[in-house]
Amino acid sequence: MNVSTAILERRAEKMFDPAFTIRDDQVGELLEKALLSPTAFNIQNWRIIRVKDAALRQKIREVAWNQDKVTDASLLLVLCADLNAWVKEPARYWSGAPQMYQDILIPAIDAYYRDKPQVQRDEAMRSCGLLAMSIMLLAQEQGWHSCPMDGFDFDAVGKLINLPDDHVISMMLAVGRRTQDSFPRTGKLPLNELCFEDTF
Amino acid sequence: MNVSTAILERRAEKMFDPAFTIRDDQVGELLEKALLSPTAFNIQNWRIIRVKDAALRQKIREVAWNQDKVTDASLLLVLCADLNAWVKEPARYWSGAPQMYQDILIPAIDAYYRDKPQVQRDEAMRSCGLLAMSIMLLAQEQGWHSCPMDGFDFDAVGKLINLPDDHVISMMLAVGRRTQDSFPRTGKLPLNELCFEDTF
Repeated sequence: MNVSTAILERRAEKMFDPAFTIRDDQVGELLEKALLSPTAFNIQNWRIIRVKDAALRQKIREVAWNQDKVTDASLLLVLCADLNAWVKEPARYWSGAPQMYQDILIPAIDAYYRDKPQVQRDEAMRSCGLLAMSIMLLAQEQGWHSCPMDGFDFDAVGKLINLPDDHVISMMLAVGRRTQDSFPRTGKLPLNELCFEDTF
Repeated sequence: MNVSTAILERRAEKMFDPAFTIRDDQVGELLEKALLSPTAFNIQNWRIIRVKDAALRQKIREVAWNQDKVTDASLLLVLCADLNAWVKEPARYWSGAPQMYQDILIPAIDAYYRDKPQVQRDEAMRSCGLLAMSIMLLAQEQGWHSCPMDGFDFDAVGKLINLPDDHVISMMLAVGRRTQDSFPRTGKLPLNELCFEDTF
């Protein structure tokens, strides 16, 4: 499926078929591709929790506005990020690169993030946004459907997945097969309210 | 070009051909598709500045580590977000939807963002991440190349583009035609460091 079609056909689906399954090898292949998405300085700050356990899914559903898709979608992914990825052996992000690049980039990583908690957090959200779009489009290419979610209690989900103190949740993704056609798109703002030339 | 190929072939390119041009209608078509990416509650909080003016490009380059691509790429896009999109006539985001959905969603938007500046900011970064990935993959489909950038002085670029007080910059994107082959990918972390089952 080409990129344009995947983008045009992707919708945030509401209801998923609980009987539809996606094999582990398919999940692995999809995530391996999606993780080729870019991160700043290649810090790969994203971390993905795939929630398989049915009881855990049910507990998450209870703190996620009781949305059916939390339990019914074939895959439930919690996209998280390590706020300290930048300081955890950053040399490994550039291993194999020419030495002159390593000499520039590794100190640049430290300078960019050290003592800047908001910059670290922004990077978490940005990286997971990039990753989420890749996962949704790859799912579409497989003939599956998806829904990005931030309608849940982030703290409660964090506790349920043992989120480390220096990690944050960015969003969840449901992936599977929808059980009903999407509604027509509504409320799209016109391009001239969203795009500007040179300045606001 | 299919989604997988676009993801596999996309790289953060360094050098762009300054003589390569992309027509306005091509830019419009690309952005129109990319803006079908999802935002939470359909708030469409993203705002895109396309920097065409050569003098302004040069000024941005001076506060962006003097990177060639800022002036050389066919397109320079500054991806921004309106932190207050949620409160600016939110009913329009669901116009045309069945009344029962409007009745639930419009108050839910207010409850989700009101008095929560970090939630508003997280949404800005997340939305722009989603949008950026779509733009880069659509560019790849056209046979173009791209580079996501956050290596610049955000405050200085904000001044140059007249960023409103209630907006933030998320990142910049260069789009055009590369002038050299990409380096091999380096430093990819193994899947088992990034993906976990059920809990950390």
